[in-house]
Amino acid sequence: MNNYFKNRCTIREFQKKEISKELLDNIIAGSVHAPTTGNMQLYSIIITQEPQNIAKLSPSHFNQPASKNAQALITFCIDFNRFEKWCNLRDAKPYYRNFQSFIAAALDATIVAQQFCTIAEQEGLGVCYLGTTTYNASSISELLNLPELVVPLITLAIGYPQQEMKATERLPVEAVTHSEQYQDYNSNDINRLYTPKELLEENQKFVEENNKETLAQVFTDIRYNKENNELFSKLYLEFIKNKGFNFPY
Amino acid sequence: MNNYFKNRCTIREFQKKEISKELLDNIIAGSVHAPTTGNMQLYSIIITQEPQNIAKLSPSHFNQPASKNAQALITFCIDFNRFEKWCNLRDAKPYYRNFQSFIAAALDATIVAQQFCTIAEQEGLGVCYLGTTTYNASSISELLNLPELVVPLITLAIGYPQQEMKATERLPVEAVTHSEQYQDYNSNDINRLYTPKELLEENQKFVEENNKETLAQVFTDIRYNKENNELFSKLYLEFIKNKGFNFPY
Repeated sequence: MNNYFKNRCTIREFQKKEISKELLDNIIAGSVHAPTTGNMQLYSIIITQEPQNIAKLSPSHFNQPASKNAQALITFCIDFNRFEKWCNLRDAKPYYRNFQSFIAAALDATIVAQQFCTIAEQEGLGVCYLGTTTYNASSISELLNLPELVVPLITLAIGYPQQEMKATERLPVEAVTHSEQYQDYNSNDINRLYTPKELLEENQKFVEENNKETLAQVFTDIRYNKENNELFSKLYLEFIKNKGFNFPY
Repeated sequence: MNNYFKNRCTIREFQKKEISKELLDNIIAGSVHAPTTGNMQLYSIIITQEPQNIAKLSPSHFNQPASKNAQALITFCIDFNRFEKWCNLRDAKPYYRNFQSFIAAALDATIVAQQFCTIAEQEGLGVCYLGTTTYNASSISELLNLPELVVPLITLAIGYPQQEMKATERLPVEAVTHSEQYQDYNSNDINRLYTPKELLEENQKFVEENNKETLAQVFTDIRYNKENNELFSKLYLEFIKNKGFNFPY
């Protein structure tokens, strides 16, 4: 296997070196051949390269350094606007404002984003997935001028890397794979699978810096806590509804 | 750029040639280095290789030939079961049964699936995304023995390809990309961007075989129609709720 796959990592610091139009066009030209539901391509890709526009978008990504210092921000959106317009012009009655269609388009947008990430990294760029797009979809939508049925899902911050790539630790492969059927985890399994991660110096330091007792508490109390999950779930669902989707539940 | 990216395509017919354990292990070992939200790896990968288990799973994929003839079916699931168990064993209070967490895990599962697809194809395998996983999640869950908080999202059918790879047609790149801001499409744009696709012989044949007037009608009336979208939206949302997630709306 191409060694790249086992050694890649997220890059959060970028050189002040422009990405050529040719390179970016080329990455996108490859990305659109990623798999897509029924060849419908239910996504749009919005490229933010103008420094003043990157500066305007960054607050929606909580001004993470990776967003502020990126050479480009690439926003991948669920898009049924284009497809509905096409249907309406062709005597066809679209019925896509539902949960299954939303999920299909979310898969399309994610798959093309990951293909973009892979090609960009193989072309020497560094990439950071910003986890903030679904938190602040409303302000991102205003800045990017998104119409009905277009929902931002993923933003990649890209640029030439300042750091070297070095594989990030992961759980052992056996932790995330199951042969034939799901084998549920007992306490011994969890201890065996998570302890090596917890013992890593960087993670012990992370617990200490955050004044927590366990690494898991850093996630539940700080990084992905109840208050934020409740608030941002409500905001994103409302936003999606305002964009025309309807999830009867 | 590696030419592979522009020339790949979905493969639906496979040779009767086993995939070695070594190759499969190697593909997965690379895939888990794909990006993941906060390095939480909120997914599980279930590998179905036993012929009798593939035969049991295929009806949940509407017995598509790609599912029946695959050498392996790989089911990628949203998984908060493992993460919650870890939190509970570490004096941390998980709060992840909400929409934002579900979306984060769906991105994780999709990203790792696409990385699996890319590595598998570069290793000479053919891959078909089965769009049926979210339609029949309940029966898939029973067969794979999925516990609470584990939701199947994507299934890849894989095997050594019978056909050669040949790039599938896509919309022109300008149709799916926007510079700085979303430029909405007027009727002229839609005509210009979709007409080449509609004029392709294979698509004209497709319209004829389905007794429709336009290609768009094949999508709205047959492939992704109102009845199925309504039914499968309801079923998947109910399934997700039964697995412990809650999307207040």
